[in-house]
Amino acid sequence: MTGASEPPVSDADREIMEATHRALRDHGYADLTMQRIADEYGKSTAALHYHYDTKEELLAAFLDYLLDRFVESVRAVETTDPEDRLELLLDRLLVSPKSNSDLLIAMLEMRSQAPYKDAFADRFQQNDEYIRHMLEAAIDRGIDEGVFADVDADHVSRALMTIVDGARTRAVVLDEAVALETARQTAAEYVDATLR
Amino acid sequence: MTGASEPPVSDADREIMEATHRALRDHGYADLTMQRIADEYGKSTAALHYHYDTKEELLAAFLDYLLDRFVESVRAVETTDPEDRLELLLDRLLVSPKSNSDLLIAMLEMRSQAPYKDAFADRFQQNDEYIRHMLEAAIDRGIDEGVFADVDADHVSRALMTIVDGARTRAVVLDEAVALETARQTAAEYVDATLR
Repeated sequence: MTGASEPPVSDADREIMEATHRALRDHGYADLTMQRIADEYGKSTAALHYHYDTKEELLAAFLDYLLDRFVESVRAVETTDPEDRLELLLDRLLVSPKSNSDLLIAMLEMRSQAPYKDAFADRFQQNDEYIRHMLEAAIDRGIDEGVFADVDADHVSRALMTIVDGARTRAVVLDEAVALETARQTAAEYVDATLR
Repeated sequence: MTGASEPPVSDADREIMEATHRALRDHGYADLTMQRIADEYGKSTAALHYHYDTKEELLAAFLDYLLDRFVESVRAVETTDPEDRLELLLDRLLVSPKSNSDLLIAMLEMRSQAPYKDAFADRFQQNDEYIRHMLEAAIDRGIDEGVFADVDADHVSRALMTIVDGARTRAVVLDEAVALETARQTAAEYVDATLR
């Protein structure tokens, strides 16, 4: 779980990740080049290669960075109440800021390449596992405190991530901003039905 | 809804679709060429171009063909009972024959290209709409017959397709055969909770 436990250490790393973010949003994954990232970074491709040998390595680090950002945004909210915690996680997983739709497009392209690129597959698997564990922790705590029914937390977290991933795919493929809202409602209905 | 109402008219069309199916499974979407489809078809690329001007046009026809096959497989089962009908649709949408995983990979690649290729986006939207209407018809019938609660059938069908699309994405990205089974169980739980 490199991504979650070791955030980018240097300012350079962080700047490169932000440049990659902008380049992915503007050009998509297929047309992304080290030159375009370097342009956003404001330095040469040599400066990029000093930190990352290949584009694939840089993009794998970007997937770690996205998980870091998600984990930070969730940690920033101090709540130990299991119900609030679960709501917060689902809200953050299914937010739909319009500005984010270009990133969702690039992410689906990268996801579709997971069968061909081990570095991507590893990161997507790690990130999914990490987020499922956060969901499970909230569910298990709720079970311990008697506010949730005694469910299979592993299954429920997988079910919720299925809804999240479905929403992300549909938002891109069907160009539906409403896909994330539909999924948020579906997740709420599912939580109500299984945990309460 | 050209796909569902007008199945490929000629044997040639059907043979080309089957050749495309095999070529996509074997080479994926990124490495698919008209030559590779022609090789599977056992004829020249000129023979392919006689039927389809471009690869994109051929692949758009392939998406129609997949919907046709799905609709035929569902029509083949004669049942008017709303509960059986809904179960059948979900079973067919979430089957996981191992032989199909290479097609799921190619399909996710094509889905990720929808924002860049209008012909793909149109087909994915039409197919989603068609299948949601099939789900809605079963739900509405169940409501009329008093076996289902009086729900918003449009929302429930979108929720179910979110689960289906999530499973298909996860099966590819996380290389999890179990993703489809998890989703089938999630869909069953969701149906139980909302319709019963």
